[in-house]
Amino acid sequence: MLEKTTRMNYLYDFYFSLLTPKQQSYMSLYYLDDYSLGEIAEEYDVSRQAVYDNIKRTEAMLEEYEEKLLLLQKFQERTRLIRDMKQLLNEENPSKEALLKIVTELEKLD
Amino acid sequence: MLEKTTRMNYLYDFYFSLLTPKQQSYMSLYYLDDYSLGEIAEEYDVSRQAVYDNIKRTEAMLEEYEEKLLLLQKFQERTRLIRDMKQLLNEENPSKEALLKIVTELEKLD
Repeated sequence: MLEKTTRMNYLYDFYFSLLTPKQQSYMSLYYLDDYSLGEIAEEYDVSRQAVYDNIKRTEAMLEEYEEKLLLLQKFQERTRLIRDMKQLLNEENPSKEALLKIVTELEKLD
Repeated sequence: MLEKTTRMNYLYDFYFSLLTPKQQSYMSLYYLDDYSLGEIAEEYDVSRQAVYDNIKRTEAMLEEYEEKLLLLQKFQERTRLIRDMKQLLNEENPSKEALLKIVTELEKLD
């Protein structure tokens, strides 16, 4: 499991389009621009608690989307396979069988 | 653009987990099991119009999810790249440069 901030950044990246504009604003200020809850509350003229509740709910939504769609998990698996493939292609005489095996695994991920 | 039934089958495949259980039932009976609206209505003891409205709404939702997440589009692009890569790997001496180019395109899709 990734460290929480990193994980939330990734999940936000994959699923931000499913969030409301307000959820997008709070999340991107908090996680991408590193604003504090108090600063976001001031910016939007709402209570710190309201910002906190909204962000907590959004985090839970992002985890639910990931449970259902697995976009981050599949991305990580694809990234690993692509890295392996690049490593093979940097060898003098890469094995075609090894490359085909990776291509087949990539295919199965979809 | 794929033929509508094929496209709906794909979209359902990618996004069914975001639908309600009732939406899932109607869509899978209609698109996967080829039930008529009347047969679904009878099965669930509701009006044919209610089934029709539910399916139309669900189709629109699936298209909205695709507009936001592009899972089908990216799947099609990945499928094309993977097919090209397999073709290259079936050649006697596949060009490593050509293979690396495809790997880089695959990477950019994520």
